[in-house]
Amino acid sequence: VTTALDLGRVETPAAVVDRDRMEANARRVVAYCAEHGLHWRPHIKTHKSRRIARLQLDLGARGLTVATPHEAEVMSSVTDDLLLAYPPVGEARLERVLGLPGSVDLKVALDSTAVLAPLAAGARAAGRSVGVLVEVDVGLRRVGVQGVDEAIRLAEAVAAADGVDYRGILFYAGHIRGTGPAEDEGIARLSGDVAAMRDGLAAAGLEPGIVSGGTTPTLWRSHEIEGLTEVRAGTCIFNDRDALAVGAAREQDLAYSVLATVVSTAVAGRAAVDAGSKALAKEPRGGRGTFGRLLDRPDVEVVALSEEHGMLDLEGTDWRPSVGDRVRIVPNHVCVSVNLQDRLLLEGADGDVEAVALEGRGRLSGAPEAGR
Amino acid sequence: VTTALDLGRVETPAAVVDRDRMEANARRVVAYCAEHGLHWRPHIKTHKSRRIARLQLDLGARGLTVATPHEAEVMSSVTDDLLLAYPPVGEARLERVLGLPGSVDLKVALDSTAVLAPLAAGARAAGRSVGVLVEVDVGLRRVGVQGVDEAIRLAEAVAAADGVDYRGILFYAGHIRGTGPAEDEGIARLSGDVAAMRDGLAAAGLEPGIVSGGTTPTLWRSHEIEGLTEVRAGTCIFNDRDALAVGAAREQDLAYSVLATVVSTAVAGRAAVDAGSKALAKEPRGGRGTFGRLLDRPDVEVVALSEEHGMLDLEGTDWRPSVGDRVRIVPNHVCVSVNLQDRLLLEGADGDVEAVALEGRGRLSGAPEAGR
Repeated sequence: VTTALDLGRVETPAAVVDRDRMEANARRVVAYCAEHGLHWRPHIKTHKSRRIARLQLDLGARGLTVATPHEAEVMSSVTDDLLLAYPPVGEARLERVLGLPGSVDLKVALDSTAVLAPLAAGARAAGRSVGVLVEVDVGLRRVGVQGVDEAIRLAEAVAAADGVDYRGILFYAGHIRGTGPAEDEGIARLSGDVAAMRDGLAAAGLEPGIVSGGTTPTLWRSHEIEGLTEVRAGTCIFNDRDALAVGAAREQDLAYSVLATVVSTAVAGRAAVDAGSKALAKEPRGGRGTFGRLLDRPDVEVVALSEEHGMLDLEGTDWRPSVGDRVRIVPNHVCVSVNLQDRLLLEGADGDVEAVALEGRGRLSGAPEAGR
Repeated sequence: VTTALDLGRVETPAAVVDRDRMEANARRVVAYCAEHGLHWRPHIKTHKSRRIARLQLDLGARGLTVATPHEAEVMSSVTDDLLLAYPPVGEARLERVLGLPGSVDLKVALDSTAVLAPLAAGARAAGRSVGVLVEVDVGLRRVGVQGVDEAIRLAEAVAAADGVDYRGILFYAGHIRGTGPAEDEGIARLSGDVAAMRDGLAAAGLEPGIVSGGTTPTLWRSHEIEGLTEVRAGTCIFNDRDALAVGAAREQDLAYSVLATVVSTAVAGRAAVDAGSKALAKEPRGGRGTFGRLLDRPDVEVVALSEEHGMLDLEGTDWRPSVGDRVRIVPNHVCVSVNLQDRLLLEGADGDVEAVALEGRGRLSGAPEAGR
């Protein structure tokens, strides 16, 4: 949908994506993966958009990762190679997942026989086979089986069950934040743990075909993880303050910002803009307890957020904006900011602006709309 | 829209509202306001729903408060008495606000002549008159004129301009958190400041007809603020951990929770549920750095949030949930949690469940949908 949108006049707050930067980000991941014999299966939770998922696939991504039934439904029209990196617990969720088009090679991650049994039974009833990745806890303490023995037991149960195929393992090392001595140690330990897991499973006749990991903070170190076959990094398509803070992105890789308007300069040393927590999200990440910064003035930070107000701190700058001026704000965490938007405005280098739908937002079947 | 929804089977995460508690909350505010000669003009940012706005008006609220053009458009079908508690800065925003039905008695808050001039010009061009409340900073340092002299100057400019009517003043004392010695002092200072403001304006022939304030944390102390005519408290319709923490609500006033399903118990001492930051919001408020707690087990807290995972800490409880169990989680800040939902499920005491649309979500004209 290309419309005559003018970023100088469009109502704010509005989410803007630099199309060239986004494409360069995608190409860089694909090139890195190609160099190291990895596949990129991007998590689309970051953008929730068919348009951007297609771009990733066109540029070389191998399949997509999703977290919710709605994301899976939406993305099943874009690829037949889907990984639901989430345990399909609950009748309603399972029913939707098993109702995906039969053409979809669906893989799901799970960490217990409590999830496996209804999945296998449902798959049999639906007349389909679902791939299973055994989810392994590598230290985040969120989900995942604990250690090699548990992994073997669950993989054996998967291999023995009808309706499901054992396809490998999956982990999420969200506790390793990028670079630095602690992270070096973390990556080394992770690599050792994954190798031990793979060896243990192989010795039990359960060699994993897929070893799925790779987050944006550790993206560029994925080749250090022995035996990894794919990376699921999603944030890297846009990047954010957090990716910058951990060294996973550079200034010129920041593709996403929230366009905002200065609505008040009444308070000395501050300016109020119309991007608040309902546009940026008030996540306490990305440095020094602030909630965002200007794209073009990294020293001007969002020091307070109400729902519809963001407060720029002007103490450290000579810049003095006026009411009506427009600014672009980089959020701490891009995925949750995108999730708050109605659409993305993709801006080309020539100034053209393309409105992109976020079809994967929301949770209900069909259009992600209220009241249904 | 009453449908046969079963909270035992509905897909999670889902936002649930206890209808009796919600109605009791509304009745309590109306009774308090009646007792003290105040009007309640609830901010609908909390619920964004026509259904709930109508309930508030039916029970005795006097008009509604909104923050965005979209909220104003949606609520203009529910009442003719609207306050936009936000400066209408920017052509696109101003055009939508001035395009509200002519039957709407529209009042807007502003703090500068930079906002006033285009508003007055636009109102004249649209052939309507817009009420203006001069927004005053009472210590939050967000927006608002600084002190009596500035307020008089702006009120004079409003009174002198065609297309707008001077109607009074508005403030937001978001820095006062409820009860306690510091808050007692804060309320006393606020009352003195508001009285001085009113006296100063009256002496200049600009007595404010409306003195609009009152947030949920200080709601029950609104009568201590001399000269206040209306309270805008919105959160009080549902309440949340923050309202509890500052003493503005009791356990039995918690009307909102997020219904979630346990998806993993693989990690010792924890349980993972499917309500993450995209259902609860990861706002660092409401106590001890955690992000929510179970409605029925206050000692079980959400200690970590990913986008689609919430981690319950089981260290302080004997309760051991199983995969598939359902829980209800009270968020820190209800307004931003509601803003993440597709709909609200209103549960009656008899177990009936009503799906309620959130028409005021999003920012685009018409349905709050992506891609338009």
